[in-house]
Amino acid sequence: MITSIQNPKVKKIAQLLKQSKARKKEGLFVVEGKKMVNEIPADQLKEILISESFLAKEETYIQQAKEKQISLEIVTDSIIKHLTDAVTPQGIIGLVKMTSTTLDKLLTDNPLIIILENIQDPGNLGTIIRTADAAGASGILLSTGCVDLYNPKVVRSTMGSLFRVPILKDRNIANDITYLQSQDIHILATHLQGSQNIYTCDLTKGLGILVGNEGNGLTDQTTALANQCILIPMIGNAESLNAGIATSIIIYETLRQRKFST
Amino acid sequence: MITSIQNPKVKKIAQLLKQSKARKKEGLFVVEGKKMVNEIPADQLKEILISESFLAKEETYIQQAKEKQISLEIVTDSIIKHLTDAVTPQGIIGLVKMTSTTLDKLLTDNPLIIILENIQDPGNLGTIIRTADAAGASGILLSTGCVDLYNPKVVRSTMGSLFRVPILKDRNIANDITYLQSQDIHILATHLQGSQNIYTCDLTKGLGILVGNEGNGLTDQTTALANQCILIPMIGNAESLNAGIATSIIIYETLRQRKFST
Repeated sequence: MITSIQNPKVKKIAQLLKQSKARKKEGLFVVEGKKMVNEIPADQLKEILISESFLAKEETYIQQAKEKQISLEIVTDSIIKHLTDAVTPQGIIGLVKMTSTTLDKLLTDNPLIIILENIQDPGNLGTIIRTADAAGASGILLSTGCVDLYNPKVVRSTMGSLFRVPILKDRNIANDITYLQSQDIHILATHLQGSQNIYTCDLTKGLGILVGNEGNGLTDQTTALANQCILIPMIGNAESLNAGIATSIIIYETLRQRKFST
Repeated sequence: MITSIQNPKVKKIAQLLKQSKARKKEGLFVVEGKKMVNEIPADQLKEILISESFLAKEETYIQQAKEKQISLEIVTDSIIKHLTDAVTPQGIIGLVKMTSTTLDKLLTDNPLIIILENIQDPGNLGTIIRTADAAGASGILLSTGCVDLYNPKVVRSTMGSLFRVPILKDRNIANDITYLQSQDIHILATHLQGSQNIYTCDLTKGLGILVGNEGNGLTDQTTALANQCILIPMIGNAESLNAGIATSIIIYETLRQRKFST
């Protein structure tokens, strides 16, 4: 059992939680909580840490882990507390290997690809991933300026969907847009000055949906690459919608037009 | 100029930021940032605090405040820093009087009333208010178990929409539902086991939309009061959507059916 926060493994996990650089270097990230840990795909799971209290409540866990040949380490409750900002930590942490995919793998039949430029809020990125999963989107591209996908707050707010939605990070999205257009994917830019509202725009063909930064929207350069600018109509007095909300409304309007339009 | 964090006014504002009890007792809450402060309705604005740095950048502010007869106090930069958790505080804080409205005022022509039961995440509540504003919803009812409307994180994420959307807090929603039904308002409960999906359900008549807690959904008692249970279809693998996202998708589907259906 690990009892000291000076233990090299504990120090390493603390670093992985704090620094995107450390995560990138090690190719590892951290998830917290039983539900999230149980969703880690077998080939991505490196190790599980559980607290003494967790072990006391879930006695069969060690046996199960042994059967599945999962590397498991028991640590004191205070170490888990040290490693998480949760108010009531569940006492279980998973160390996960990063995976990657290719842009071509996102080109399913009639794809819906979400392209995010400089999204900065971890909760926004996390919920967009969760909505993309719920609506069966083909995948997500993240520009180099986006918050780190493996930031613990992003990971938590995906509720496990980051294990299910194909996501490519650190992308040069200008290049990706050009490539997608060469593959007959229509690129729509979400823009407050869009010329067409999402309810009159045909969203049934292969699409890439561009969404920009929370405060500034899409850059002019990226907007210029799109085939069309779309907007979500606003009849009230709000100036704009939250970026995660706006993206989710468009994802679901796409799903509606494709599957639930009468 | 106020220079000490021991100043009674500073201490009071710190309490208003931290404690919903203090806010309730004083009937006041706090907003931060120039844009938010500028959106405070004149009859709700009690006082503005600006930092020395803010004053240096916005010299005409004092004159403008005088002309509008706004009570203005100058404080040191470190006091503003003490009073906000923003990384780069803008140097302006507004003290706002709470207002209230009545349920009957929400009964506009063909109303869309959002009824939230035990929503706990400040960001979720804030973005729901922002979306309700954008889509022109009639108003929002908050059950007694919801996060405090005047929590600084809620206030910030509304982006000013809490000054525009009629909101009633600390409601006995069971009573409200019964009253709304007596006024021919159809009550729909958002539920993962809903019988009808939002795209096949008629949302064009006067509606109350019930949305439950992030982790647990609606209580059985509240669900039982609804005229119908609805769901957002999920074709992917996510178990559920974020509560703020789900509510926003339903608000916008209502707007679509009412204004943009062909």
